[in-house]
Amino acid sequence: MRAPLWAQPHHDGSAHYLEQRDGSAVLRVLVPHTQGRSGAEARVAVRRLRDAEPAWTQAEVERTDVGGTWWRAQIPTEGDVTRYRFLIGTGGAAGGYTWLNAAGVHDHDVTDAHDFRLIAHPGPPDWVADQLVYQVFPDRFARGVAGRDVPSWAEPAGWDDPVIWEGPHSPVQWYGGDLDGVAAHLDHLERLGATVLYLTPVFEARSVHRYDAVTFDRVDPALGGDAAWRRLIDAAHDRGIRVVGDLTLNHTGVGHEWFRRAQADAASPEAAFYYFDEHPHEYQAWWGIKSLPKLDHRSAELARRLYDGDASVVARGLRDGLDGWRIDVANMTGRLGTIDLTHQVATAVRRTMADVAAESGADPGWLLAEHGHDATDDLVGDGWHGTMDYNGFTRPVWAWLNGGSEAGPGVRHGLPFLGAPVDVPVLGGDDLAATIRQVHAAMGWRAWTASTAHLDTHDTPRFRTVTGGGTHGWVDRDGLGRERHLLGLALQMTLPGVPAVFAGDELGLTGVNGEHSRTPFPWDRRAAWDAETLEAYLSWTALRRDHVALRRGGLRWLDVRPGSLTYLREHPEERLLVHVVRDPDEAVAIPLAALGLAGAGEPRTLAGTPPRTEAGRVLLPPIPAAHLYTLPRAGAAQAPAARAV
Amino acid sequence: MRAPLWAQPHHDGSAHYLEQRDGSAVLRVLVPHTQGRSGAEARVAVRRLRDAEPAWTQAEVERTDVGGTWWRAQIPTEGDVTRYRFLIGTGGAAGGYTWLNAAGVHDHDVTDAHDFRLIAHPGPPDWVADQLVYQVFPDRFARGVAGRDVPSWAEPAGWDDPVIWEGPHSPVQWYGGDLDGVAAHLDHLERLGATVLYLTPVFEARSVHRYDAVTFDRVDPALGGDAAWRRLIDAAHDRGIRVVGDLTLNHTGVGHEWFRRAQADAASPEAAFYYFDEHPHEYQAWWGIKSLPKLDHRSAELARRLYDGDASVVARGLRDGLDGWRIDVANMTGRLGTIDLTHQVATAVRRTMADVAAESGADPGWLLAEHGHDATDDLVGDGWHGTMDYNGFTRPVWAWLNGGSEAGPGVRHGLPFLGAPVDVPVLGGDDLAATIRQVHAAMGWRAWTASTAHLDTHDTPRFRTVTGGGTHGWVDRDGLGRERHLLGLALQMTLPGVPAVFAGDELGLTGVNGEHSRTPFPWDRRAAWDAETLEAYLSWTALRRDHVALRRGGLRWLDVRPGSLTYLREHPEERLLVHVVRDPDEAVAIPLAALGLAGAGEPRTLAGTPPRTEAGRVLLPPIPAAHLYTLPRAGAAQAPAARAV
Repeated sequence: MRAPLWAQPHHDGSAHYLEQRDGSAVLRVLVPHTQGRSGAEARVAVRRLRDAEPAWTQAEVERTDVGGTWWRAQIPTEGDVTRYRFLIGTGGAAGGYTWLNAAGVHDHDVTDAHDFRLIAHPGPPDWVADQLVYQVFPDRFARGVAGRDVPSWAEPAGWDDPVIWEGPHSPVQWYGGDLDGVAAHLDHLERLGATVLYLTPVFEARSVHRYDAVTFDRVDPALGGDAAWRRLIDAAHDRGIRVVGDLTLNHTGVGHEWFRRAQADAASPEAAFYYFDEHPHEYQAWWGIKSLPKLDHRSAELARRLYDGDASVVARGLRDGLDGWRIDVANMTGRLGTIDLTHQVATAVRRTMADVAAESGADPGWLLAEHGHDATDDLVGDGWHGTMDYNGFTRPVWAWLNGGSEAGPGVRHGLPFLGAPVDVPVLGGDDLAATIRQVHAAMGWRAWTASTAHLDTHDTPRFRTVTGGGTHGWVDRDGLGRERHLLGLALQMTLPGVPAVFAGDELGLTGVNGEHSRTPFPWDRRAAWDAETLEAYLSWTALRRDHVALRRGGLRWLDVRPGSLTYLREHPEERLLVHVVRDPDEAVAIPLAALGLAGAGEPRTLAGTPPRTEAGRVLLPPIPAAHLYTLPRAGAAQAPAARAV
Repeated sequence: MRAPLWAQPHHDGSAHYLEQRDGSAVLRVLVPHTQGRSGAEARVAVRRLRDAEPAWTQAEVERTDVGGTWWRAQIPTEGDVTRYRFLIGTGGAAGGYTWLNAAGVHDHDVTDAHDFRLIAHPGPPDWVADQLVYQVFPDRFARGVAGRDVPSWAEPAGWDDPVIWEGPHSPVQWYGGDLDGVAAHLDHLERLGATVLYLTPVFEARSVHRYDAVTFDRVDPALGGDAAWRRLIDAAHDRGIRVVGDLTLNHTGVGHEWFRRAQADAASPEAAFYYFDEHPHEYQAWWGIKSLPKLDHRSAELARRLYDGDASVVARGLRDGLDGWRIDVANMTGRLGTIDLTHQVATAVRRTMADVAAESGADPGWLLAEHGHDATDDLVGDGWHGTMDYNGFTRPVWAWLNGGSEAGPGVRHGLPFLGAPVDVPVLGGDDLAATIRQVHAAMGWRAWTASTAHLDTHDTPRFRTVTGGGTHGWVDRDGLGRERHLLGLALQMTLPGVPAVFAGDELGLTGVNGEHSRTPFPWDRRAAWDAETLEAYLSWTALRRDHVALRRGGLRWLDVRPGSLTYLREHPEERLLVHVVRDPDEAVAIPLAALGLAGAGEPRTLAGTPPRTEAGRVLLPPIPAAHLYTLPRAGAAQAPAARAV
């Protein structure tokens, strides 16, 4: 398609474009007027698959306005998943057409991989879309109780000691943060607009990260134990903050009570929980790390204890008040060579969570997978609700906003690219958009909007280091990486997906790897915080909170180029225009009509610099910053039957 | 990737690039030298998925020659399917890289959808790749026995009568072609180089197309019955021609003995073979056509009778001498709403066919699906061996070579586009290549090379009508559509996939839909045949037969533009350069070095016009025709460890 993006037909899974009903769906497509041609001159048909055979529905014109023509079609939904895309006849002697699928428009025939999808299975909880997640690594957030007993495995550190970020001392460097410490700082979360507290694991373990659980029956006493856990959940709920736990289904620690029994007795039920090549000392383990023996999900008893049914760890967590689970290493869970039970595990976890919620009348829980790669196959149908969206958010944003080292932009900081054997590359905004579109076209709108968008996590370098803020592991107070960091923040807060902030990002902390990023939160050194960064976090999280279009709007790309990204977030209640500029460049110009602005008022600036209007076009500022505008609702490009959802 | 195609890294599933072993595979990538950079300066790593987690293998330089550098890596194969792609580091301060997957090279991150794939399940029979299929519609090919009894449902026609191509008389217009008639003309197949005779159904039915079988126990007496079937198979085998049958697993005719029993007795085993909404008159049927009741594959007894095990129709056919089955409506078989047993059916058919072959010591049979759309999901792993490749061959070729009506190119013939609610479009060669790459990247090399490439079939208009040869249903003797028809023929014979010629295409027959295309073969009117077209078929089928690179070579695109396509077919024994020109345009120029020709001799012309060499480049002729060259083996771009497969 050679037309500019703002002149291309559009559809997505948001309320403007899709109304899903029992047994059918109403679909809308906006066909912009372009090059003197009315969007009503097109012909629009929906191609859906019915028993793997295409079935066609002609769309009808619902309304034409200054920006384009809204086409409407209603299609039945049959089967678990209904795939569809649009054929848009462009008329003319050649009888040409373009396809519109979730990856955009195409001038040639395409496969079904990026079809839009309607899914019959119940979706993620509706509340998920409105959330803002704050991630806490308990050992490093805050000490609530001084003078705790030092765990046997731990090597205590003072709160201001530098983090050991490699070698065997790293996982046992114990700062003694605890759950009461978290509870004591919920006001900070509230100020930031966080609505979900996600904590990395709290079950008793033998490391500070606690991904090597020794039991699922009790919260680590070093964190305050079960009582502190209950206090924290209650305190969070009292402030309207939900709590998401972290559970590893792929492996346990070698010290787990199940594994000890399994090793002690080959005839025990627990022996079937693991893959013993030769009992008791040869067994499969995560990445071959013998301290993390891999769980064998062919065991029904394992499922019963861990995730399937009322007596499971999953169910107990929800009954204790959790609002969801983040599943660690979800991509490998249930998979080993020719064995692939991942989807079956995901479905069982979902069912258990739904059952607990139904029983208690509580909101259904959120099931979030750690799948850092292409999670498409695991998210379809009744799989995980969403994923940690490294693939469709973190990677492309890093590559666009890669700021080099503290020696200056373009100088290599040498950070590896999230597991790939290359440094973080430098890509253009057009490349970023291509990846974002492709990943989420495959994943589908529903899974995308139930996935988390991270600039970084406890498993990665700090984003501030990626953007050029330095490799020292402390606050980038000189602001070397600040500008690009805050562009990333704006993307995180204005793109679909649930933003997830790793505690300390809002201070401008740096770090060269996951271990290095686990800096104890410097509560007592507020003067060291990067105030400009914190201010920006407060502003952007408030914008996210205050604007439903940022949380639930559609996403329509208007312009992408190496140095800038421009897109609309459209919702029946409001329309927002986002313009994120990395490189000073010529102004991006969008026709007023394409924005539905002809005669309908001016954009109002919510962040950044106001645009200019000239010769029937809006000229967006070529100023490196994130610019956010609200567009008048009257006029074009409004869905005809706009309804809040 | 902004580099020209001939300068892009390449890998495919052919012998040059892939050696699959038990438990591992050796992969080779050619990185051309480009823009003063040596292919050896790149860094190449293989990314494969192991339990859904990326695992990396660094490739090593095996050899550098004038054209580029060959990189080699060996990776283990684990699980049923091993997905992999290549990361090619391009060096420089930015630390950039490109991905190489089955769809080509990409400057930004991609999903796993187009990864190359290694499949642990046994593949399609090795013999398939060498075949050339000739498709016969028995009622319309040749009469072997005069004065047969007219079937009760039939309306007899004289051999030269015009075909009724719409309305209720069409399916019963009986010309009386039979199996002995086919046997009597095997010399024609042999002359054309056909090695597989594929016949549309021969089981007794109530129409000339016989997709409405009344039994699977006997060949239609109107075709000569079981004895004629055996005579034909034996006669074909005597000439080294294999025979593929046609079986509908999706439905039977309403007159089928099973359906009659099912209707008569709701308690009969056969009643469970169908989907009765309300017994006996309300039932599911193919596209709602009540004369074709849909089979319910949840019935194990149906499976046993039809395709699962030694007593099945599938097994009996092979024991009668068939070399394969084409499965009618394979895409819908086993699917209805939320029921999806398609893959299970395909796997069972494969197993049955493999068992029969193992038992008799015969070559394994070929399992070919009729799936005219995106067949990816049904071809993976142990699904159908291949598909009728409407999606990846017929559609793009039609769109590129659409010649309009007999009134001239560009004038609309008004033919619908193979089921889509639009006319056949007019696309460029670049669009064609994009579709071919995308469809086959999803499908995988193995399934592609076991799929059939058709210019048309008994279900479509004749290709000669698409290319402008007229809508009259008779031979295009004026040659209005000849030039583009023969370009399509050249694509069919030089691209991967098994060519399948529908009887009569070689004479220049036209037709506006499937029924119209079922013209009785005019054996007695040879003067009417388009001699130039037949001559071209004889030449191109001979080239296919004589050149292993056309049958088993890799496919490396060198240049695609609206008016021409240029590609290499590479095999350890030879390298062929194909240049198909639709529009006279400037000459396509490829550097000698990129073709491995620097100092290594000249291309030798096998078809079309010789190229010129000038200033270190080969200038390919801008003459509308298909040009075929053999390249010298010495020099570059030869795999280091070239081995015949």
